[in-house]
Parts: sequence; structure tokens; C-alpha cells
Amino acid sequence: MKVRLIIMLKQGVLDPQGKAINHALHNLSFEEVQDVRVGRVIDLEVTETSSEKAKARATEMAQQLLANGVIEDFQVEVLT
Amino acid sequence: MKVRLIIMLKQGVLDPQGKAINHALHNLSFEEVQDVRVGRVIDLEVTETSSEKAKARATEMAQQLLANGVIEDFQVEVLT
Amino acid sequence: MKVRLIIMLKQGVLDPQGKAINHALHNLSFEEVQDVRVGRVIDLEVTETSSEKAKARATEMAQQLLANGVIEDFQVEVLT
Amino acid sequence: MKVRLIIMLKQGVLDPQGKAINHALHNLSFEEVQDVRVGRVIDLEVTETSSEKAKARATEMAQQLLANGVIEDFQVEVLT
Repeated sequence: MKVRLIIMLKQGVLDPQGKAINHALHNLSFEEVQDVRVGRVIDLEVTETSSEKAKARATEMAQQLLANGVIEDFQVEVLT
Repeated sequence: MKVRLIIMLKQGVLDPQGKAINHALHNLSFEEVQDVRVGRVIDLEVTETSSEKAKARATEMAQQLLANGVIEDFQVEVLT
Repeated sequence: MKVRLIIMLKQGVLDPQGKAINHALHNLSFEEVQDVRVGRVIDLEVTETSSEKAKARATEMAQQLLANGVIEDFQVEVLT
Repeated sequence: MKVRLIIMLKQGVLDPQGKAINHALHNLSFEEVQDVRVGRVIDLEVTETSSEKAKARATEMAQQLLANGVIEDFQVEVLT
């Protein structure tokens, strides 16, 4: 089973990498872009076969190791 | 409308950040983890209102600027 | 002239990527490692020929675009 | 003792994050910028007290875990 963690800076936290991409896209005439936020994605291949359990475990991994809860939010998705 | 780009190293390309996370998770007794791949996520807020067009434009952004087609693959998702 | 920006999370800010690498290195028997911090490096090739001016300009770039002053610190080095 | 690893994409490998920053800086009138390359920095606090040994060990860490030798180059610096 494959589980995906999406880790982004919290909404209020300034994101310089997103800002740079926003400028660059405008420079290339992608003028429909209003805001850009950049994050990390972590795809986990796990032996777990229950979606519920796999999500719960990935949530623990994020909380214990992979995300900084003070400045980052995360989402968990089961891919397969 | 919000569009998400997920950019990962291609399957054959060694991913040292994923490897480090895999080791660290084993170290913390998340033994169900077999493989980890790390990538970038880029969330784009766009004025475009058609999902089809928004996806097509995000694909162009990835090809022209945001992904390295030689070593990276990308996916486009419409979030809202 | 080449100028290097080193951007790191401020000392008090939890660094999950550093923590994961620390665990992984212990797992591989690099037991001398006590702490790991991860950051971004941005190398800028500029036409400027004065070191002083190149550093001052790179500082402006970091402040205006490349670093988040609330959670990140940066250093500027002239490489050549 | 503190050791710094600087990991960059090899010279021939396209760097989309650097390209985006280059565009963004031009957009903000930093016109002296000709090229931008982005990399990772990993600062290691180690108990080792010999600079030579600390560098040798950090080199092993990069080779075994932290860098992808096919697409990335790395440098080791002793900071303190």
C-alpha cells in the first residue's frame, strides 16, 4: 500500500520559495497565477493492508518525525 | 481554482532524502515502511475557471520551468 | 563573481529533515553525530565585480525574496 | 566540531528551482544575476575532534546516504 504525506507551511507563514516561483511564472506570462505555495511530498510504501491503519501510522510518522507542527500542516492520502 | 503539481524523481533515480527518511522511520520502529520517495509539491492558485485549461496550463508551467524532465516526473491535480 | 547564500532554520525552530537524517546516520553507525540541521544553498553568478557590493546585493535578495526572516537565518559568502 | 556538507546538482543537470529564482530576481530588478543554482546544506555537529577525520567521515556519510553521486556533487567544509 502506498501512502502520501503532503507537508506545507501553515497558511500564515511566509513562503519565499513559493514567492520566487510566482514571480518567475509571471515573468513567463503565466499571468493567471495569483499565489504559489511550495511543500514537501513524502511517498511511503508500507506493508500495512488496511487504509485506516496505514493513514493512522503515517499521521504518527508525520507528528513524530517528518513535519514541524509549529510551522507546518500535513495531509495524508492513501494512493493505492 | 487551485491546482497542485507533484514533482518526484523518476523511478530509477536514487533518492537520498527518501533513503534517510526510510532509515529514520525504521529506527523509530515504523517497520512496515519498505520504501520512501521524497518530492516537491507546488500549489498554484489560478484565476482560470476551467479544470481542463487549468491542468493544461500547469503542465506547461512544469515543462517550461518547474520540473527537470530528464530526472523528474510530475503529476497535475485540480484541488478545487 | 559567485556569491553563495546559506539559508537555515533559526536555532530554536524544530527541523524535521535534520532530525530524520540524524536518526538515519545513527542507524548506519555514524554515532559521532549529535545534531543535524538542514538548509538551502543558493549560488548566484553575478556580473558585479566588487565583493562588498555583491554581498550587499545578495543580502537584499535574501531579505526581499529568498529567505523568510521570521523562521530562517541566512549567511552570504563570496566564492570567487 | 561542526562540519558542513554542500550538495548541488552536477553542472550539466538542469536545475528548475535555480531557474525560477533567476527569473524572479530579474523580475525584481536584480539584473546582475546571470545564473542561479540551488542545493541542500547539511550541518553536522559531531563529537570528532580531528578536522581531517571529521571531513573523512562526512564524506562517507554523503557517499553512503546523503548525496546521489549520479546527479549531485558535494563539498565538505569544517566550520569550527
